Amino acid sequence: MRIALDGMGGDRAPSVVVEGAAQALDQGPPDLEITLVGQAEALEPELKRVGLSGGRVKLQEASQVAGMGDSPSSVLRHLRDCSIRVAYDLHKAGEVDAVISAGNSGATMAVGMVVMGRLPEVDRPALASVLPGLSGPTVIIDVGANVDCSSLMLLQFGYMGSVYAETVLGIADPKVGILSIGEESGKGNTVVKQAYDYLKNSPLNFTGNVEGRDLLDGDVSVVVCDGFVGNVCLKLAEGLVENLKELMKREVLSTIRGKLGGMLLMPTLKSLGLRLDYAQYGGAPLLGINGVAYICHGASSAQAIASAVRMASESVAGDFSSHLAEGLERYRGALLGFDEPV
Amino acid sequence: MRIALDGMGGDRAPSVVVEGAAQALDQGPPDLEITLVGQAEALEPELKRVGLSGGRVKLQEASQVAGMGDSPSSVLRHLRDCSIRVAYDLHKAGEVDAVISAGNSGATMAVGMVVMGRLPEVDRPALASVLPGLSGPTVIIDVGANVDCSSLMLLQFGYMGSVYAETVLGIADPKVGILSIGEESGKGNTVVKQAYDYLKNSPLNFTGNVEGRDLLDGDVSVVVCDGFVGNVCLKLAEGLVENLKELMKREVLSTIRGKLGGMLLMPTLKSLGLRLDYAQYGGAPLLGINGVAYICHGASSAQAIASAVRMASESVAGDFSSHLAEGLERYRGALLGFDEPV
Repeated sequence: MRIALDGMGGDRAPSVVVEGAAQALDQGPPDLEITLVGQAEALEPELKRVGLSGGRVKLQEASQVAGMGDSPSSVLRHLRDCSIRVAYDLHKAGEVDAVISAGNSGATMAVGMVVMGRLPEVDRPALASVLPGLSGPTVIIDVGANVDCSSLMLLQFGYMGSVYAETVLGIADPKVGILSIGEESGKGNTVVKQAYDYLKNSPLNFTGNVEGRDLLDGDVSVVVCDGFVGNVCLKLAEGLVENLKELMKREVLSTIRGKLGGMLLMPTLKSLGLRLDYAQYGGAPLLGINGVAYICHGASSAQAIASAVRMASESVAGDFSSHLAEGLERYRGALLGFDEPV
Repeated sequence: MRIALDGMGGDRAPSVVVEGAAQALDQGPPDLEITLVGQAEALEPELKRVGLSGGRVKLQEASQVAGMGDSPSSVLRHLRDCSIRVAYDLHKAGEVDAVISAGNSGATMAVGMVVMGRLPEVDRPALASVLPGLSGPTVIIDVGANVDCSSLMLLQFGYMGSVYAETVLGIADPKVGILSIGEESGKGNTVVKQAYDYLKNSPLNFTGNVEGRDLLDGDVSVVVCDGFVGNVCLKLAEGLVENLKELMKREVLSTIRGKLGGMLLMPTLKSLGLRLDYAQYGGAPLLGINGVAYICHGASSAQAIASAVRMASESVAGDFSSHLAEGLERYRGALLGFDEPV
């Protein structure tokens, strides 16, 4: 199990990334190895600081760094020795099994698609996010890789999410739904209504429309949407949880009674905060490329980085890519049965 | 101030609607009059039950009722004496100043557009929702009237939301943003990126993209989006708040310490719940029709109905429609300066 970690990616890189690597090695399986990719002069002092050395951690020099503001195309063209690119080059060469970055997410997606290539039958790789639903995890796909989607793309997202839920999350015959604005089949915009028909006629365990209010119930394991809507929803959920914590803090601190109750409830609030902390869920898998890649939030904590390493390990162990390729091959007839250009 | 209330609309109609009318008359200005529209045989016993009678409440017979499952077109065609239609007919005839319904929302929108007509320069009326942001109310427009939108429609939503925020919510020179997936101007799907340019070149106080996580901060008073995305967001926020309440209840009840803390914090939790209760915000205004209409959640409580009556009164008092017509007329040049067909 060899994972390449972009040492230069993230708001607090490299320190938090290196701390995340240390946590991951501490918590992970004994065969886990991490290759930190980036500028040695920045990474070496951090490795020393957290006391990381020895055979399970390697350092791979990459002379350039992709900034958060750099466009994916300029990273592809001009930063051929940046840490994100070098990490994928290692993956392509078979020297690592997965890539993780908390850096420029647009660049991490674009470079991943270009360097690794796509799986057969996948027109566009998609970014999935696993959120904690009330009764179980929910895979939302796409959350930002594709802002303008065709109905056939949404169908493919359904396949990718379903295989991910089954092979990585261990959910048997996962329920697949499509995000829409009503429970009935006729509800939605033009693209969603067409995708509903495609999904309904596919071999997937399609259960119909999912409304925003049911998105995080966990009843449906895979929710399909275009990357624009998915990204807005993901960030809205994040922001709302932050707002609620802030409101609760204000309310609790506003009276003596509130303060005392807050003290008694502190462990409860903390465990609740943990459940609601989407960062705990680590990274978002980029599905459909010919490899394993996870994209982390720029503000990721060391714990979030370590979670992403754990998730990437599970993807590698579950051999997600082969299963997806097989699954898509099996469903090829269904996919090719529709003549809309993607 | 005369308001027509659809007595037959809502999951618990007519009882909750009549209770809402009683609350509204109790809390509202002395010149408020409510016309309950619906089947007399259903409404009269309820009026008696809550002790409503006299000059400030009227009953207007409507022999038919639009079911929640009836399509807007079939309501328009076949239910010409349903309560929603009769309420709008009263508004059109000048006998009331506003219409409120918690019934079939698609039908309430469609009948409103057909009976009342549109304001000049408005291509498509839109449904707005006023949500409680951290630092102030946020008007989200559209939340469900138009699922497939052009960029010019989004520009018009910006105008409608801005005039609403100014004249009804009393926010001077309201900040207008567009919901997207990044802060920078180049982020978004094709329609949103074009709308960004339109809004930027308009006389509105446009501040750029708003991400999902900032949607409920309240920093931007008007957030423009298509009705598909807006509806999903609205319901996601609702559902997430419900999920959090449920999680908190489970956590608080799981230990003795939690129970004691919960008891002490009860007033805090209640006041918090109240702030988070989007139903408190009553109804969603249908903007762009030649009249005043509010659409309430089917699950509206009596309090939510009363809130909608208050909001409708404020729209009438603020003379929103005239201001919008004036505002749009003033901006006509800007609107007509773009040649994309709506």
